[in-house]
Amino acid sequence: MAHVIPDFYAVIPAGGIGSRLWPLSRADAPKFLHDLTGSGHSLLRDTWDRLEPLAGPDRIAVVTGRAHRAAVEGELPGIADANVFLESEPRESAAAIGLAAAILHRRDPEVIIGSFSADHVIRGTQVFEWAVQQAVQVARQGYIVTIGIPPTEPSVGFGYIKKADEIVVDGAPEAALVERFVEKPDLDTAKEYLADRSYLWNAGMFIAKASVLLEELAANEPELHAGLVELAAAWDDRDLRGPAVDRIWPRLKKIAIDYAVAEPAAERGRLAVIPGHFDWDDVGDFASLTKLITHGRKNDLAVLGPKARVLTDAASGILVSQTSRVISLVGVKDIVVVDTEDALLVTTVEHAQRVKGVVESLKVTGRGDVL
Amino acid sequence: MAHVIPDFYAVIPAGGIGSRLWPLSRADAPKFLHDLTGSGHSLLRDTWDRLEPLAGPDRIAVVTGRAHRAAVEGELPGIADANVFLESEPRESAAAIGLAAAILHRRDPEVIIGSFSADHVIRGTQVFEWAVQQAVQVARQGYIVTIGIPPTEPSVGFGYIKKADEIVVDGAPEAALVERFVEKPDLDTAKEYLADRSYLWNAGMFIAKASVLLEELAANEPELHAGLVELAAAWDDRDLRGPAVDRIWPRLKKIAIDYAVAEPAAERGRLAVIPGHFDWDDVGDFASLTKLITHGRKNDLAVLGPKARVLTDAASGILVSQTSRVISLVGVKDIVVVDTEDALLVTTVEHAQRVKGVVESLKVTGRGDVL
Repeated sequence: MAHVIPDFYAVIPAGGIGSRLWPLSRADAPKFLHDLTGSGHSLLRDTWDRLEPLAGPDRIAVVTGRAHRAAVEGELPGIADANVFLESEPRESAAAIGLAAAILHRRDPEVIIGSFSADHVIRGTQVFEWAVQQAVQVARQGYIVTIGIPPTEPSVGFGYIKKADEIVVDGAPEAALVERFVEKPDLDTAKEYLADRSYLWNAGMFIAKASVLLEELAANEPELHAGLVELAAAWDDRDLRGPAVDRIWPRLKKIAIDYAVAEPAAERGRLAVIPGHFDWDDVGDFASLTKLITHGRKNDLAVLGPKARVLTDAASGILVSQTSRVISLVGVKDIVVVDTEDALLVTTVEHAQRVKGVVESLKVTGRGDVL
Repeated sequence: MAHVIPDFYAVIPAGGIGSRLWPLSRADAPKFLHDLTGSGHSLLRDTWDRLEPLAGPDRIAVVTGRAHRAAVEGELPGIADANVFLESEPRESAAAIGLAAAILHRRDPEVIIGSFSADHVIRGTQVFEWAVQQAVQVARQGYIVTIGIPPTEPSVGFGYIKKADEIVVDGAPEAALVERFVEKPDLDTAKEYLADRSYLWNAGMFIAKASVLLEELAANEPELHAGLVELAAAWDDRDLRGPAVDRIWPRLKKIAIDYAVAEPAAERGRLAVIPGHFDWDDVGDFASLTKLITHGRKNDLAVLGPKARVLTDAASGILVSQTSRVISLVGVKDIVVVDTEDALLVTTVEHAQRVKGVVESLKVTGRGDVL
């Protein structure tokens, strides 16, 4: 069991819908509210349970949309009111994590925050805790720290982090500097990265002193920083918060934290990385969900859905069933079938990435009622 | 336009469910009640419309199950009460067609009947009529006459009829004797048949004097014949029909008319054939339905369903939609998706024949509620 880290605060941005998992994930039922692993809990709840031993139940904040407040509080009965940070509309990760940093920094200028996505899957609790403990040690030295996952295959679905020299920090034997971030590569490049061993998957985890993160944001995105600081100043005053959100939030720049903070910090030698030796997946599409549930067994059919009444014959891939209909899959290989009350998707594991395009087409063609 | 043939009576056996088209076709919505061609009419109605110019509206009988009476009368508002022959349970085609022959023979000993399936698709009205007119001419000479379809491809899904010598009948220049019936062949054999030109597809159409058909039945299946004659004697008496059906019908032998009448008649040189130069398909499974709707264009997606809200991207095959759900097919080739309120089937054109096995499995596993 991990000991609670006293100056640590966990932040869970719970914002993305998970468009590539449509029609399972949608605006009113985003990915983080689903149980995609059969654990019996939502991904959000699993994330909370993973962080509670490190931060304690009173020091985990969730940044989410107003529409999801009730669902989030339902999943996390232990969350304090003051730890639910509501966005009036989505403004991407720099605004979401930056808001949490600004609020928590106001409450405690020395706080170290760690941001962890609400909808990733992690297996291996102890090694996860060990990675976070190391990251916090390095963050205390003024670094922004990310946790990178040593690749186990030449994935073209993730971004990569290139490690540079090791840095010597007590209690963080695996710490290294980050040379640069790399966008999703092609397959040949991914194979080189796998062989090279100095490339890690970018799992979107950031640990830093709130003050350091805000400094970096101020240097790179001064307007965004100013807006967030102004918002944070009003936040803990009941009367001021609402008007401040309405005035400031819609004007904040939409930018990913990778671009607003992490990449510039890497260039300045201020970004460190700890390798995370746990199983990690962002479950970005039905291909990765299939792999996750079948444990990579190619001929298996993964079935997700408690009410599923299924009859299959020589089928493989994934079936997600949210209705009580009888479903029969006959002779279909690597198939993806997602059966919900008002929408049905049939595709293949190979084409799983194209589901996002479907969602965009539905928007354009006026069928947004099922998004 | 054809002239009505005065001594001709059309018989439409409307019995089969069409299990290979599950979950579109089912016990309470058999294939013949569906519009599979986009004509705006059920296959049953199309069959009626094809026969009416030849027989006249008062001389078309339908043999169907009690459960389908209302649906049949709904589709065929012009049908006379006396022309609806209700089976208390299915007993296969020899009993169904034999019953019609026995009843109509009692009403008119000289009648020539022609039996045509309720759920086949035919294109080419004039050539159809010309084939029936020739068949009636040959039937007047005491033959049992079938209409065979010249193959256009080496089909392994149909039975075949091997032609023998021509026979000389006035008004029937294409008449020939039948040497034998052949069960569904393998592909190599089907290719030989296609090249040979003396093999025709067995389209299950029989034209004969009712008296001749009954004689043949008496010779081959005397018990079945006796039961049908007894039933026919009671049929047109309101008080007698019900008890006679209850007593006799359930004990009648289940046998196809091909075995009970046509094959033995062929051996005795009493079976003739007229080639039918029209497009014909029994639409036995989703592969043939796909071909029918796409006119064989391999890269097309056939969509059947007035309420379909469909979004596809590089998909081919067939989608049958009976719900108002949004359906998205992405990158799936030669797919078969059948979306109904209580059951969903996903298979491929290649595996279409295996759908019947699904239906049997559903029976066995206690999910007969969706059959």
